[in-house]
Amino acid sequence: MQNNNLSHQMSLMHALIRECRAGIPKEVEAMARKEGLSSNTLAHAIAMGKVSVPANPRHCRSAVAIGEGCLVKVNVNIGTSAQRCDHVLEVEKAKAAISCGADTLMDLSTAGDIPSLRRQILSLGVPMGTVPIYEAVRRSGNAVDVDADLLFQVIREHCKDGVDFLTLHCGVNLEALEALRSDPRLMGVVSRGGAFHLARMVQNGEENPLFSEFQYLLEILDEYEVVISLGDGMRPGCIHDAGRLAKSIEYLAIGRLSRQCLDHGIQRFIEGPGHIPLPQVGYNIRMIKELTDQAPLYLLGPVVTDIAAGYDHVVAAMGSVVACCHGADFLCMVSPSEHLALPRVDDIVEGTRVTRIAAHIGDCVKRGEAWQRTRELPLVEARRDLDWESQFREAMFGEHARSIHGRDGAVETCSMCGDLCAIKLVKEIFEKNHKQRE
Amino acid sequence: MQNNNLSHQMSLMHALIRECRAGIPKEVEAMARKEGLSSNTLAHAIAMGKVSVPANPRHCRSAVAIGEGCLVKVNVNIGTSAQRCDHVLEVEKAKAAISCGADTLMDLSTAGDIPSLRRQILSLGVPMGTVPIYEAVRRSGNAVDVDADLLFQVIREHCKDGVDFLTLHCGVNLEALEALRSDPRLMGVVSRGGAFHLARMVQNGEENPLFSEFQYLLEILDEYEVVISLGDGMRPGCIHDAGRLAKSIEYLAIGRLSRQCLDHGIQRFIEGPGHIPLPQVGYNIRMIKELTDQAPLYLLGPVVTDIAAGYDHVVAAMGSVVACCHGADFLCMVSPSEHLALPRVDDIVEGTRVTRIAAHIGDCVKRGEAWQRTRELPLVEARRDLDWESQFREAMFGEHARSIHGRDGAVETCSMCGDLCAIKLVKEIFEKNHKQRE
Repeated sequence: MQNNNLSHQMSLMHALIRECRAGIPKEVEAMARKEGLSSNTLAHAIAMGKVSVPANPRHCRSAVAIGEGCLVKVNVNIGTSAQRCDHVLEVEKAKAAISCGADTLMDLSTAGDIPSLRRQILSLGVPMGTVPIYEAVRRSGNAVDVDADLLFQVIREHCKDGVDFLTLHCGVNLEALEALRSDPRLMGVVSRGGAFHLARMVQNGEENPLFSEFQYLLEILDEYEVVISLGDGMRPGCIHDAGRLAKSIEYLAIGRLSRQCLDHGIQRFIEGPGHIPLPQVGYNIRMIKELTDQAPLYLLGPVVTDIAAGYDHVVAAMGSVVACCHGADFLCMVSPSEHLALPRVDDIVEGTRVTRIAAHIGDCVKRGEAWQRTRELPLVEARRDLDWESQFREAMFGEHARSIHGRDGAVETCSMCGDLCAIKLVKEIFEKNHKQRE
Repeated sequence: MQNNNLSHQMSLMHALIRECRAGIPKEVEAMARKEGLSSNTLAHAIAMGKVSVPANPRHCRSAVAIGEGCLVKVNVNIGTSAQRCDHVLEVEKAKAAISCGADTLMDLSTAGDIPSLRRQILSLGVPMGTVPIYEAVRRSGNAVDVDADLLFQVIREHCKDGVDFLTLHCGVNLEALEALRSDPRLMGVVSRGGAFHLARMVQNGEENPLFSEFQYLLEILDEYEVVISLGDGMRPGCIHDAGRLAKSIEYLAIGRLSRQCLDHGIQRFIEGPGHIPLPQVGYNIRMIKELTDQAPLYLLGPVVTDIAAGYDHVVAAMGSVVACCHGADFLCMVSPSEHLALPRVDDIVEGTRVTRIAAHIGDCVKRGEAWQRTRELPLVEARRDLDWESQFREAMFGEHARSIHGRDGAVETCSMCGDLCAIKLVKEIFEKNHKQRE
């Protein structure tokens, strides 16, 4: 029986590989080169839904592969709010994010001329996501009165504009609401999109249309070739709520919807897991992956402590590194202003850098120590040789490193140790000793 | 046989507990209260060498317990260098560290009037450590000419001044040097103290006196009741060197010396492990703990990537969190200027805060989820109630959080979501729905 299964798997695999050989699109070949993967491997992972490529044909941008086997990617959120609505600032933030290495952007605007800003951000040329319910609520005036037709109309407009992926909180359904009532949480719901759907459901007693009309939604996504990011509207909003039921009910719903996407050839990400204690990160990541046929996992958080406001970028990075060890693929930047204020440009820069470091360490864990050694060798050799220019060239944020090193004037070593630099000392003593022996 | 062992252990335990009951010093009782431990548990851990308390009787300071079962502690290094020698600045850095929650300080000065600065830092009233070889090298003019008598004289002077713990690189011995030669490393030696001893050994072919005269050293430490921090002079200085032999040879030497400390009633810390890839953190920490009879472990790093200069505080914090999961007890602050320049006050603030967050997450892992929930509940309740003043009071760095929140003016929610705050929305909708049902 086992042999039969194996042989079935093998022939499926061979069929797929044959198909890939017959004609792997050149976009896949280009992405595979960037990832350091074979084209066959990447094409196979895409076909199996383990990798997704957000690439709306109406939007001209660089294609990015996200998921199993690929390098860990970083998304950065920008967007207006009623308190701070400045399109110029948001574009500046988006550009800063790209220059710090963001792979994708999401526009989470809830105020101003939302379509106009969306099109500006789209023109920057990186894959971009949105959360259509935000615009639907703005146009409707409040969350309770958003009707299904308006929501689907907004979704269609975003697709037509060229948005590459859409966060849609399809798992926030009546069953999840019932779980929230039967097993209450301290923080209730902290997902803004989740809260909008919930408000409507509580008020009208009606099912979330994104859940009840999921088939129709898939038809739209299919028509425009847009990736769905299955939003985690029920993610816990504090450590205290991590083990409550609503989250798991949503995991199960998202798992079923993820399978429907796979069956209909719709690419998807899965979002998770919010605020959870560090020891719960591993099993949450593995559970989401298992329930979704190993779909690409897009991390919000994990925020592993609630008391470090002002440093939640560092907190999320710590959680992310552990999550990557268990299979997370895609990190949503958390900024220093998380839980406190809309980010400024400097918050975006700091948050994106720290998130990129977490992604790199994730890559090191996933690809193994030999990969890390090869990747990092040029910097290490430059450091050994006290060759500062090469160090700055090879560092992740070289100009930032240069500004720190340069502030105490030009020295061969650095102002930490000066002439007592261990590297210099050991090099000299071994050289001297070697000459004396000759 | 197993029963006999067990019964032997039991009677040893009972004897110790009886002894503790007969008279636990009130300092231990005070520390136990701060740690949330019973006095017996803490006294027993101290007696077994699993917890150390750096507390030179000649130095008036708050006693801090470091090791198994205790909250994770943070040390901050300050100190002059030839490039930047400003006593006023170093005292300012020390004060900044204390205000950010440093538990201990180390003065690593290598320039200026070292004894004078040491006494100034000692007067600040927290436990303090030094690295005597630095002053010995300064007085001798260079590392090669430091003689054993001078080194022991400096050690004695530091003890007399009231220094609470001394980093002494006793494991940098001829065997470790041979390992360095037979299994060379890209970065050689990056420990400054380690390099000084090595220079001397390479030049003169003589054993490190801290190793060959370890018994004499223990007599001095015993006389002054000073804790030894067994320095990891052979710690790898880059990811590439993590698996090379010198480190393990030093682990074994330090393990034997640690046992000698235990046999002579000398308290000790063990330092480790430097630059290592994330997947190697767990086994390194457990190996060091095993080889040293579970002595308190003082983390330098772990720096888990070499290419993020300017953000090594974040990199070390990521490594530290994983190290705490495996038993690390005491974190040495890494600043944003690590590998680049002597830290300024702002580097000390940033580095200490990020290290404190790592220590807190370490505590959450070690003490468990129920402990974390209780610890963090007041902030979560304040956040749920949109009670900002209470949030700032309960946050780790409340004034910093306040400055971010306040920059977009006074709002009930925050400028991220404004009136579309999920917390506010869900609260209102449930309240409204509840009233309608009544």
